[in-house]
Amino acid sequence: MNLRGIFKQRTSSTVARERLQLILAHERAESGRPDLVITLREEILAVIAKHVAVERDKVKITLDRGEGVSTLGVDIELPLNSSAKFAAEKEKKAA
Amino acid sequence: MNLRGIFKQRTSSTVARERLQLILAHERAESGRPDLVITLREEILAVIAKHVAVERDKVKITLDRGEGVSTLGVDIELPLNSSAKFAAEKEKKAA
Repeated sequence: MNLRGIFKQRTSSTVARERLQLILAHERAESGRPDLVITLREEILAVIAKHVAVERDKVKITLDRGEGVSTLGVDIELPLNSSAKFAAEKEKKAA
Repeated sequence: MNLRGIFKQRTSSTVARERLQLILAHERAESGRPDLVITLREEILAVIAKHVAVERDKVKITLDRGEGVSTLGVDIELPLNSSAKFAAEKEKKAA
């Protein structure tokens, strides 16, 4: 199941905006927790927001509960170079 | 780019172990931070470990730095029903 190749091709030749995509899939046993991906969603978004400037209206979240597999998709459009700028500001504060 | 379908089919008819898979892809601008997915990796693993029993030797991590796209893959085999048991214990402690 090679997902990596899917991300390989740039979606556009020059990147107008940076983009962060996350797929979280939980293949569960019959009695496994169906809500695990939902529980993890907010905490993972909070981790991401610590490192890049996330604009709430640029975050697309999808949730799919298949038979035995729950899949969470998060697609975040980042302002250009927000990750680099964010890191620079953090370093300034730490200095 | 529909990744969801990939996770739809169960990898085995009866699930002997639960499984959590995460793909994090950062499509970056030329000057974007190449290390963002590495920075996020440990903190996301820590979030997951708060909710399910993660055995370090059952965690497979792959990192791929393509042209303009960094992709982190995390594949965690969970002991059967660990997520359900973990949630039950947490509720007991909270009560």
